[in-house]
Amino acid sequence: MSTRYKIKVSYDGTNYSGWQVQPEHRTVQGELERLLMHMTGGEKPVRVESSGRTDAGVHARAQVAHFDLEKPVDPQYFQRGLNAQLDRDIRVVSFEKVPSDFHARFSAVGKEYRYFIYNGLIIPPTKRLYYLQEGRRLDVEKMRRAAELLVGEHDFAPFSANPGRELNGTVRTIYSLNVRKHGADITLEVQGNGFLYKMVRSLAGYLVRVGIGDLKPESVHEILDHGIRTAVVPTAQPHGLFLWKVFY
Amino acid sequence: MSTRYKIKVSYDGTNYSGWQVQPEHRTVQGELERLLMHMTGGEKPVRVESSGRTDAGVHARAQVAHFDLEKPVDPQYFQRGLNAQLDRDIRVVSFEKVPSDFHARFSAVGKEYRYFIYNGLIIPPTKRLYYLQEGRRLDVEKMRRAAELLVGEHDFAPFSANPGRELNGTVRTIYSLNVRKHGADITLEVQGNGFLYKMVRSLAGYLVRVGIGDLKPESVHEILDHGIRTAVVPTAQPHGLFLWKVFY
Repeated sequence: MSTRYKIKVSYDGTNYSGWQVQPEHRTVQGELERLLMHMTGGEKPVRVESSGRTDAGVHARAQVAHFDLEKPVDPQYFQRGLNAQLDRDIRVVSFEKVPSDFHARFSAVGKEYRYFIYNGLIIPPTKRLYYLQEGRRLDVEKMRRAAELLVGEHDFAPFSANPGRELNGTVRTIYSLNVRKHGADITLEVQGNGFLYKMVRSLAGYLVRVGIGDLKPESVHEILDHGIRTAVVPTAQPHGLFLWKVFY
Repeated sequence: MSTRYKIKVSYDGTNYSGWQVQPEHRTVQGELERLLMHMTGGEKPVRVESSGRTDAGVHARAQVAHFDLEKPVDPQYFQRGLNAQLDRDIRVVSFEKVPSDFHARFSAVGKEYRYFIYNGLIIPPTKRLYYLQEGRRLDVEKMRRAAELLVGEHDFAPFSANPGRELNGTVRTIYSLNVRKHGADITLEVQGNGFLYKMVRSLAGYLVRVGIGDLKPESVHEILDHGIRTAVVPTAQPHGLFLWKVFY
């Protein structure tokens, strides 16, 4: 009988080709699997399953993943060992034993993402890796009106970068979508029961268009009614996006 | 008659060997001088003089520098041109014509530095380049008591990494030294009429020792009275330090 472990992982996605293992590319899953295999004797691969992949350049405050080890280990010792060997742009922030029916993806009931925007002409260098820079003035009130219209259960196909690939259909529920502003920093905070491929970046790209006045907040209705992805909805750059929390 | 310009420069010091030009090393001054020479025809070197050097790995929110150009230029056009050519870890945040008696170093009447500490066992990856990580619990009240004792005019030789090199003596005035705490983030904010070599990093290293209980806040008296640098005062790592503001 193997033992199942759940980890929370925080990462700076700047130098990774996303979460998912890819040959010849440095990925977060790849780094974790390589080290876990090494730490468990180096003979059997350890498969690390996450709540969902993140794309190249996307960050995570708290990605969740699980994996099975043949022999039980001391969580604290293993967590320290992983952090000692990982580069500092990945940190295992928690490590615990869980029942074998816990599944990082299938047990998840919701997620929160945050998207960070610096609304100014010149972005401070220390924010450049974690914020989208937008020089045109964003009207936050308009963004908030559009955000309100996006909340609820909808067919979000127009906000998926690849609706045909969605195995579980394209209907999702957004529980909340808040637009916060502190000085030049604008943060989009979105919670939902699940998100389509590049959906948060598409929501961000759309809300920026609303904020600069390219589209009216009420255009949400037309876009959702239209039902298919068009060039009206751009995909915002990956580096402003953080997987913030996974709910179980 | 040449024309003098003042710029404010923000930089992420991670990938630079500090401010000052050094052969074979990438420095902030070096990048600016190279581009300014290029933009003014490429024949005569342009010397960029700052408010003071920053060490390798130290950041700046607003370093100030001046330089003279033989022919007057349009500040806005030149600022944009510089930012278009600089890597994104250096930004020229302002560019203006100043009287020829303005001097970035000699006209400065004071400076503010901030030093950022993450007080926790596991530092979030996106803070790793900008915060010192300290896993031992810091007692902020003790740090504040020591900080209060450091405020005022003192001979800060024990907080210089090289007192013999200080051309203007080692007496300086600290106007304020605040220790702020938000969750795990502790920020030291220090304003003074001038700072000795590695003085802020030495103050930070000392205050951390007070915070972990290695030294009592009242040890400030002994250290200042002793008058020479000893191993009691460590130099904190450069990457937590930001030159925040220069006062004129």
